[in-house]
Amino acid sequence: MEVFERSIEEQVRILQGLLANNRMTRFRTEFLALHNYDQAQIFNQLKSEDREKVYQYLSPSELANIFDALEAQDEKIDGYFEEMLYPYAANVLAEMYADNAVDVLNELKDRDRVNIYMHLMPAESAREISQLINYLEDTAGAIMTTEYIAIEEGLTLAEAYYQLRQQAIEAETIYYVYVIDQHHRLTGVISLRDLIINDEDKLVADVMNNRVISVQVNDDQLEVAKMVKDYDLLALPVVGFDQELLGIVTVDDVLDVMQEEAESDYSGLAAVDVSEKHISPWSAAKSRLPWLITLLFLGMGTSTVISRYSGLVEEVSILSAFITLITGTAGNAGTQSLAVTVRQLNSKDHDKQVGKTFSFELLTGAITGLVVALCVFLIVFIWKGNPFFGLIIAAAMFMAIVVANLAGLFIPYLMDKLGFDPAVASGPFISTLSDLTSVFIYFTIAGLFLAYLL
Amino acid sequence: MEVFERSIEEQVRILQGLLANNRMTRFRTEFLALHNYDQAQIFNQLKSEDREKVYQYLSPSELANIFDALEAQDEKIDGYFEEMLYPYAANVLAEMYADNAVDVLNELKDRDRVNIYMHLMPAESAREISQLINYLEDTAGAIMTTEYIAIEEGLTLAEAYYQLRQQAIEAETIYYVYVIDQHHRLTGVISLRDLIINDEDKLVADVMNNRVISVQVNDDQLEVAKMVKDYDLLALPVVGFDQELLGIVTVDDVLDVMQEEAESDYSGLAAVDVSEKHISPWSAAKSRLPWLITLLFLGMGTSTVISRYSGLVEEVSILSAFITLITGTAGNAGTQSLAVTVRQLNSKDHDKQVGKTFSFELLTGAITGLVVALCVFLIVFIWKGNPFFGLIIAAAMFMAIVVANLAGLFIPYLMDKLGFDPAVASGPFISTLSDLTSVFIYFTIAGLFLAYLL
Repeated sequence: MEVFERSIEEQVRILQGLLANNRMTRFRTEFLALHNYDQAQIFNQLKSEDREKVYQYLSPSELANIFDALEAQDEKIDGYFEEMLYPYAANVLAEMYADNAVDVLNELKDRDRVNIYMHLMPAESAREISQLINYLEDTAGAIMTTEYIAIEEGLTLAEAYYQLRQQAIEAETIYYVYVIDQHHRLTGVISLRDLIINDEDKLVADVMNNRVISVQVNDDQLEVAKMVKDYDLLALPVVGFDQELLGIVTVDDVLDVMQEEAESDYSGLAAVDVSEKHISPWSAAKSRLPWLITLLFLGMGTSTVISRYSGLVEEVSILSAFITLITGTAGNAGTQSLAVTVRQLNSKDHDKQVGKTFSFELLTGAITGLVVALCVFLIVFIWKGNPFFGLIIAAAMFMAIVVANLAGLFIPYLMDKLGFDPAVASGPFISTLSDLTSVFIYFTIAGLFLAYLL
Repeated sequence: MEVFERSIEEQVRILQGLLANNRMTRFRTEFLALHNYDQAQIFNQLKSEDREKVYQYLSPSELANIFDALEAQDEKIDGYFEEMLYPYAANVLAEMYADNAVDVLNELKDRDRVNIYMHLMPAESAREISQLINYLEDTAGAIMTTEYIAIEEGLTLAEAYYQLRQQAIEAETIYYVYVIDQHHRLTGVISLRDLIINDEDKLVADVMNNRVISVQVNDDQLEVAKMVKDYDLLALPVVGFDQELLGIVTVDDVLDVMQEEAESDYSGLAAVDVSEKHISPWSAAKSRLPWLITLLFLGMGTSTVISRYSGLVEEVSILSAFITLITGTAGNAGTQSLAVTVRQLNSKDHDKQVGKTFSFELLTGAITGLVVALCVFLIVFIWKGNPFFGLIIAAAMFMAIVVANLAGLFIPYLMDKLGFDPAVASGPFISTLSDLTSVFIYFTIAGLFLAYLL
């Protein structure tokens, strides 16, 4: 791997040299021998004047291969297309896999430019792209491609194999051949493996698997990823309401979905978007501040509660020593409960009976709360030598943990019910919220048993 | 999907009925028509007496397909194998894909039983398994399979295609054919697509891609996943020190790796293992308590610091109102910085120059700290009407945020350097640690400027 990585950097230098000296043939030979992903990495590192030459040296179809390997989310893509002449750009999009072209078009800021590209490209490509462009984000429709191989049931394997060879260059995957009826409804699937190992005189209908696994076009992309993963598929067909075959989602797109979802869950828990690459501390700070400031105002609520009890703190100043212990521990417990709940909601294997989940989390909170409270009682008793004080801290700790645990459960549930992604319920949000409930519980209990403290 | 899910539950009922009435043929027809993943789901729901019958009704090879679709991490697997007769169990393992069989063997608690299975299974399978079983966990070697298709360079495409058909039933993927020299060193790869669309008289050496992408057997599984994802591969060859082909990692295993890594990162950030499925609140509490108790002791440090300043708090009790605001906000900032750093370290695209990363995070912390401090100054000034008090809170807030940001950077870096997974540096750990530094900063500043407060 190390060798490989170094050689990419060398390649950039060599290729830049060839571009600077207008050595088109050498450049093409060197560059086109590389894997598309490496080409994309190198292309990303070129300067604007180098790229202008690349647009002259490479055909739209060659550049399309590079752009298929780039992440469409890459902010630079818009700029690249702006650098190209309209007809060239339109042809690059037409030569890309339709699903990737849609991703790129969705990133372009200037909508007029999108229209121009659509008019300039071959009608067939424009048709494929416009079929895809209207599907909702994060659904099967949005990540599928229409470049699949489909045959009708009546054929023999030999005929099917012939059709596959004809369509092999265009299709995004050739490892599944989908079988459709005369209304274009999906009726089966046959893998290339089955085509190869079976006798070629057999009928497709006899060899195909007619329990074909598919998703609806509006299904969530997470559902799609889960199916591909669970059933070990290389591609998954996407159907409409009448079982008509609309497209396929290939496993490489599922890998991207999983990466995206993992980053979004992780970002949610930390209250910062980890998928953004910042080039300056300014932009990094800008992306972190909204959450920090929002939580600051929520945290002010906690300060208000504490300041209402400043009389109590003046009388028993040692109370202040345990504020952070209680808020901190409850916040940690709440974060645990939140993470478990978000994961269950997102993996779609959660218990639908809210009541059962509620009592499960309540009990878990009660058990953890009891154990932690016992520890805290012993520590405070030994440290301060006052059993009443220990009891007050322990009681507050117990209640604060139970409440934080339930908040960690209810907030993602609520977000899910309201149609939001439960994963945006962040750990910092739960900690800050549970600070508020924890100090309220703490000072209420301390106030009630003030007599024993003095 | 909904229809599908419901039908699984119905299937379980129907199949249980067939087992109860000893209707072996009907059971086999119904059950074997299902997809392996569904078979696995159903099998998981059967009672022990039903499973005993399944072991009689299905051949080892049929059961092996089910076990290939089960997650080896599933705790129940050990129990299933215990239920089977030794020779039957050994044959199930032999018929499974070697990488999955190794996963199962690693889960079995009774090591003697593992030895018995290895002795009872066909020598060829035992050899394949023992080749794999010694690779380090989470490396390419541990997730690879040896059931790949390899041919020598000198063949024509027609001969290669013939060899592929011969090996197609055994191989885990037939979509790549690897090309090796006489020393079994990997020299190229040819996709089944290339085999199909090219003229069959051509030589393998002329059509194959000789810039074949591979990983070393000891490379981290994350590296493997990243390569498969970036290069859109369906399988990735694994080589030893002399480039000799040892195995392949298929994309379905990469999906599992990504899921596993995402869950482990997410779990790390929340200080709870979200991949564990708990059936009772007791076991859930047991898995959450170690972190909570550990952090409780760290939190006691913070309490000790505050209690050392109890004299100050008695004099200026309002100081206590802002403890949680400062610790909470610094904890949030630290969690953000931690999450960004862990992600960078894990995606292997972090800047190797620690100094540069350090100054980046220092500046980001300074900017966010300044903005938050300004907000806090205004709020406290307006609320309490005392500019000095506002300044003290703001200064403490600024410093606490900068320190927490740097802690969020250094702790994962340190763990990475020490050879640990940086992702186990949890958000709760950073918050609790930054509580300590924050109150220390806060009370030190407050103590220094006490005169202005009174």
